[in-house]
Amino acid sequence: MTAVVSQATSELAAKGAAARQAARRLAATSSKTRDAALHALANALVARQDDIVAANRLDLDTARDMGLSEAMLDRLLLTPKRLAALAEDVRHVAALPDPIGQTEEMRTLPNGLQLGKRRVPLGVIGVIYESRPNVTIDIASLCIKSGNATILRGGKEAQYSNRALAQVTQTALAQAGLSGDAVQLVQSLDRALVREMLEAREYIDLLIPRGGADLHRFAIDNAKVPVVTGGIGVVHIYIDQAAKLEQALAICYNAKVQRPSVCNAVDCFLVHRAVAAEFLPRLADHLGAAGVELRVDETGQHLLAGRSNIRPVTEADYGTEFLSLRAAVRVVDSLDEALDHIYQYGSGHSEAILTEDYSAAMRFLNEVDAAAVLVNASTRFNDGGQFGLGAEVAISTTKLHARGPMGLRELTTYKWVVLGQGQVRE
Amino acid sequence: MTAVVSQATSELAAKGAAARQAARRLAATSSKTRDAALHALANALVARQDDIVAANRLDLDTARDMGLSEAMLDRLLLTPKRLAALAEDVRHVAALPDPIGQTEEMRTLPNGLQLGKRRVPLGVIGVIYESRPNVTIDIASLCIKSGNATILRGGKEAQYSNRALAQVTQTALAQAGLSGDAVQLVQSLDRALVREMLEAREYIDLLIPRGGADLHRFAIDNAKVPVVTGGIGVVHIYIDQAAKLEQALAICYNAKVQRPSVCNAVDCFLVHRAVAAEFLPRLADHLGAAGVELRVDETGQHLLAGRSNIRPVTEADYGTEFLSLRAAVRVVDSLDEALDHIYQYGSGHSEAILTEDYSAAMRFLNEVDAAAVLVNASTRFNDGGQFGLGAEVAISTTKLHARGPMGLRELTTYKWVVLGQGQVRE
Repeated sequence: MTAVVSQATSELAAKGAAARQAARRLAATSSKTRDAALHALANALVARQDDIVAANRLDLDTARDMGLSEAMLDRLLLTPKRLAALAEDVRHVAALPDPIGQTEEMRTLPNGLQLGKRRVPLGVIGVIYESRPNVTIDIASLCIKSGNATILRGGKEAQYSNRALAQVTQTALAQAGLSGDAVQLVQSLDRALVREMLEAREYIDLLIPRGGADLHRFAIDNAKVPVVTGGIGVVHIYIDQAAKLEQALAICYNAKVQRPSVCNAVDCFLVHRAVAAEFLPRLADHLGAAGVELRVDETGQHLLAGRSNIRPVTEADYGTEFLSLRAAVRVVDSLDEALDHIYQYGSGHSEAILTEDYSAAMRFLNEVDAAAVLVNASTRFNDGGQFGLGAEVAISTTKLHARGPMGLRELTTYKWVVLGQGQVRE
Repeated sequence: MTAVVSQATSELAAKGAAARQAARRLAATSSKTRDAALHALANALVARQDDIVAANRLDLDTARDMGLSEAMLDRLLLTPKRLAALAEDVRHVAALPDPIGQTEEMRTLPNGLQLGKRRVPLGVIGVIYESRPNVTIDIASLCIKSGNATILRGGKEAQYSNRALAQVTQTALAQAGLSGDAVQLVQSLDRALVREMLEAREYIDLLIPRGGADLHRFAIDNAKVPVVTGGIGVVHIYIDQAAKLEQALAICYNAKVQRPSVCNAVDCFLVHRAVAAEFLPRLADHLGAAGVELRVDETGQHLLAGRSNIRPVTEADYGTEFLSLRAAVRVVDSLDEALDHIYQYGSGHSEAILTEDYSAAMRFLNEVDAAAVLVNASTRFNDGGQFGLGAEVAISTTKLHARGPMGLRELTTYKWVVLGQGQVRE
């Protein structure tokens, strides 16, 4: 033990304790009160847009000085129009059904005890994220809606924006009669703070790292708090010999090109040998026209010889999440070989089969173990909004607690409630 | 990196890899096959009772030489009668509904995609436990039923019994056409193995430590695999001023005396001041007749002066799980004071209020955060069997994945299955 406490530690201790206290009170509030806070927040995002944009300008200036790319600057940028859209998102969250208090599996036992599982908030949710400052509002609003306090740790590059947004949120909470302590923004930029959060069992009930593979790995290796990780998708599409090739072309294109930078974009095409000669050249040309580079196995290279968007695949390409206009290709002899490839290289995120063969589709559905297994559809559908969950915190690739898109319900737990009339156990 | 691999590491690596392979195959089996394995196991427990009892005798001899208590020897003991009962338990598990393959929340989206959440096995479940060898069969049968492979690490004191039981189980699996690798018993008694299991993300999807508080703390501090802990219950009963005192007496007695060694037995009575003078002496005498020692606050000491089963309470007694015929007592001025006490000292296991005051009961239900919150019933009901779950692996006091009694369903996860007809995302 040492008497010297780092700045990060003391900040987390103070804010963690405040969040914990706020969580206890927040859990006992009504939907109406929490929704009122969300409407106050939505209004404030517009009413206080000048302050927020001014803070955002500080971040943008720094980012420009540091030579960040235009794409990065765009991710940071907040404008009145974007703030108005963010306010609409918050109102949308307010309009969602409240998961809290829903009681499931209510039953009466033979001895007269009534029992059921009542949905309750998890408590305090910690989130570590980067760049886009609107994530601060996304997470805060979902946590308020679900009765959870939150400890936010955003990126250095958005620090001024995040402070302004957190302050607006805290004021909105107070306007609705709730404690502003329910939303805590950790301001220390010390990297040690990430580790502190990962160990803060006293203050954090669930930690969600939102960032790259490095952050996820660091979180899994160092966490003593429960962590749900996700967003790392090594995504496969298996084009079976019985696929409708025209449809397959459209699905493969959509899954790769529609938004290549996200986790449910496809990374590897597994093509059955029986259709490879017909399908692969069309796929390569179609994707090539959109600027996609394919990293192809030997069989594929023969079929695609002479094309400029073709490179030989390496072992490392299999199992890589490209997040860009790149994909791996492998020609397989059978469904079994495709299943084995996915078992070996998949990250359990989104896996699809394209086929008209009923038994092949059923085997794929049964045997592939992933957050989402799809038949004849783009992997881009593995998404909270697309699945109709109304909102999404993350896409979990862990198997416990939540798998796939995490909406409001996944920010809750349950407690058993038991109503008796004097029952004792025999 | 070192070329010297400990015996524990190499054993876990071999058995972990075998379990992982077996899990993949087991996940694709039918209920009928898994139930056939369970019936084969039940039959073998009786048919091979001589071998099992002989192995058990080796453990008993060692235990006697080490001077273990009669209670400990009894926990170790396997007899033909006990094996027959264990076989009945296995048949009971076989008769439970199979959670695997159940699909929840099936829906059709506006774009025609059909999707739902299908229950699937977690994969490989690791369990660390002590003494009673029948736990080997309990866990193995629940895992087989739910399509999970398992890696078991029992206690040294039951090593020969556990080996015999695991071998019988593996043979039964093979009889049903399943791989015996689905049930792995780690034989190394090296303590390092516990740590290896806690870090074995490659092989273990969920680890359940079943043992004392020290094992749980060690697991939480060192786990890199997901851990569900439970079984540590610092359990309170709040006797409100509006309690029916006769009924309260029966519930308090049941919660403390019916089985004092278990986690849902009560540890602390919080008595409202308005009824303390009338209730506490009756409670002390009633419990005292069963040999219960009460550790009592100052107010209580005045009310209970002269009784031989009364000791002054210490700060450490609050927050202690006694697991014996002891309990703490505190006289409180209000429901709020009781709620604050439970918030501070409770372990989130089982908490009860005894009252006829509707609003007090509702506040307690709403505001106490625990796996089970009970009104006018014994805390001993927080149990998988009592709740009608059919079987129980553990009582979780973690908030994620499962809370309270963990039955078969809590040994599963889900995957989203999506059935399309060529849909792409716009």
